Amino acid sequence: MSAASLWSDVLETPAVLVDFDRMERNLSRAASYAAEHGLALRPHVKTHKSPHIGARQIALGAAGLTCATPYEAEVMATVATDLLVAYPPVGALRAARLAALPAQVSLTVALDSAQAVADMASAAASVGRRVGVYVELDLGMHRVGLPAVDAAIALARLVAAEPSLDFAGVAFYPGHVREHVHSQDAKLHVLQEALDEALSRFARAGVTPRVVSGGSTPTLWRTHEMSGVTEFRPGTYVYNDRTTVAIGACTRDDCALTVLATVVSTAVSGQAVIDAGTKALGREPVRGAEGEGFGELLEHPEVVVMRMSEEHGVLDLAASDWRPQVGERVRVVPNHVCIVVHLNDVVHGIRHGVIETSWPVAARGRGERVVV
Amino acid sequence: MSAASLWSDVLETPAVLVDFDRMERNLSRAASYAAEHGLALRPHVKTHKSPHIGARQIALGAAGLTCATPYEAEVMATVATDLLVAYPPVGALRAARLAALPAQVSLTVALDSAQAVADMASAAASVGRRVGVYVELDLGMHRVGLPAVDAAIALARLVAAEPSLDFAGVAFYPGHVREHVHSQDAKLHVLQEALDEALSRFARAGVTPRVVSGGSTPTLWRTHEMSGVTEFRPGTYVYNDRTTVAIGACTRDDCALTVLATVVSTAVSGQAVIDAGTKALGREPVRGAEGEGFGELLEHPEVVVMRMSEEHGVLDLAASDWRPQVGERVRVVPNHVCIVVHLNDVVHGIRHGVIETSWPVAARGRGERVVV
Repeated sequence: MSAASLWSDVLETPAVLVDFDRMERNLSRAASYAAEHGLALRPHVKTHKSPHIGARQIALGAAGLTCATPYEAEVMATVATDLLVAYPPVGALRAARLAALPAQVSLTVALDSAQAVADMASAAASVGRRVGVYVELDLGMHRVGLPAVDAAIALARLVAAEPSLDFAGVAFYPGHVREHVHSQDAKLHVLQEALDEALSRFARAGVTPRVVSGGSTPTLWRTHEMSGVTEFRPGTYVYNDRTTVAIGACTRDDCALTVLATVVSTAVSGQAVIDAGTKALGREPVRGAEGEGFGELLEHPEVVVMRMSEEHGVLDLAASDWRPQVGERVRVVPNHVCIVVHLNDVVHGIRHGVIETSWPVAARGRGERVVV
Repeated sequence: MSAASLWSDVLETPAVLVDFDRMERNLSRAASYAAEHGLALRPHVKTHKSPHIGARQIALGAAGLTCATPYEAEVMATVATDLLVAYPPVGALRAARLAALPAQVSLTVALDSAQAVADMASAAASVGRRVGVYVELDLGMHRVGLPAVDAAIALARLVAAEPSLDFAGVAFYPGHVREHVHSQDAKLHVLQEALDEALSRFARAGVTPRVVSGGSTPTLWRTHEMSGVTEFRPGTYVYNDRTTVAIGACTRDDCALTVLATVVSTAVSGQAVIDAGTKALGREPVRGAEGEGFGELLEHPEVVVMRMSEEHGVLDLAASDWRPQVGERVRVVPNHVCIVVHLNDVVHGIRHGVIETSWPVAARGRGERVVV
């Protein structure tokens, strides 16, 4: 523990800090929950985009990792042999990139269209690989996924008919269930009825899914109540954020990631300006309520980031006796941590005020090349 | 012009496209306006973060470039010898990084506190460099800048007393003037009165600013009406976006940057899902009006991105006869282009459907290092 690694001395701002003790507690809690209920935990890496953390999730018992983008899958293939790309593999370039993942990776994709089946089947066949497929159901979120069970069964049959594809299961995302954990009953009931109906019709049709993949961070601790679900894919739980707290899926003490910022101006009375704005925090709501702001201070929860420009965050001091000095440093608990990670290149892991390690956000971006 | 460079063939999505003809027209129009009115154009690079474009702005007559972050300044120092960092140089690390810019760079900073004066003076002195300083005034935006002219004059004297600093002028940012160009009269009138008052009191105090730096993209074409202003710092004008169109500071045909996206799902009726969500577009409003969405399609302006997840954008088809197929590609005109650039790593410059060149968003991020 060298003095030089005190983050207050060495870090320019804005900088992303991760409290390792909190993160480890978050990871362990979800792993224990999965083990207790016999559920396969397949964490979504979109939140951390880091092979270090992906490896830690695997070590704690995760069945595999979930990715959204081809680049996330490429980066996670360095630490995991079982990857789900929970995103339609549409387009020859995207499908080919997925098919080109290392051969030792067991790859599954989720999809909802005949076009995606054709694209993935063709790409997989051309490299002699077999790819698992979850047929995505819309159980109320109305984003991707087939609302009609007949159409989902027909798609599963299309998948099963492709030699390069393996019908592995069904997937859904309960992203519309964002009520407080204790107020989710009504929506979970409706979701359960739709899931029951879908599963019984799949069974009657003779295309029984081996895996039923659902679950999110907001519904994390109620996954075991969703009858039929065998696998869940929470992402945000690794770090948590103000939204997870508002939903009741964690406490404020479970927020592991903060943005370190410097007060750069106090010239206008009633406020202080920090160097974390939309380009460090993102313009993400908690629930969209008046006055909730875009983040709150770890040490002064009554102070929120009320307005932002690209590199400025305006702290509203009206509810606080605290009066910061120019040059003072603060830590912001963000509204939506997945966006914060995506906006920054490096994360600093701290324990007791000391930087223990830093790592790049390895799967940030798209792995794009300059093509001309 | 090889077939292989057709962007429809080679680009994975989401991808950022810049129409070179439109960009060049935008750059030339502002350069001509500056020359016509004898104003120094000092474009803000936050929008493009690219030394290629910075160099082009210089070639077209820009007096220098404006940056917000130390990293932007480091990257732009490769193509410009006159840089303004329009951001308080607060903190020893930030000030030292600015002072370490190449010696041939004429560096100016904008600040509003004695602490920033001390930090910048100390860092400049320690490397034997002289740094110009604009004292930032708050002329109505209430972000940074001193609202009280007395305090601003006192700060200018503090600057002038530092051997390593040079009081170069005053700066303000009319970021609160976001009405339509033709409806800005009332706010510009109030701003002009405040500016007149400040300039006459600075003159009476014997600390006459050589430069009066103001102006933005929303007020771009009215900069010459702001009596006393000698320099303006628009950023967004290089690409423009839906917000610039809404303000009337450009037409829709002047939007040079679009996000190429693929339709990945049409499973839910009345909508189509594209692979550009908050991680490609940002959750930025135009004016915050109901139904405005987070971007509109270039070829189908009646279709907007109505909802987003991190990697999903949901197109509302209610107002359109257009019914896309899965796999079809679209181009999104974003609400706020500066955020889109910051969210992406590579930009592809196109002319007539062909990629002419691609370049990295070189000054994206912070130039952070993994420190442990």
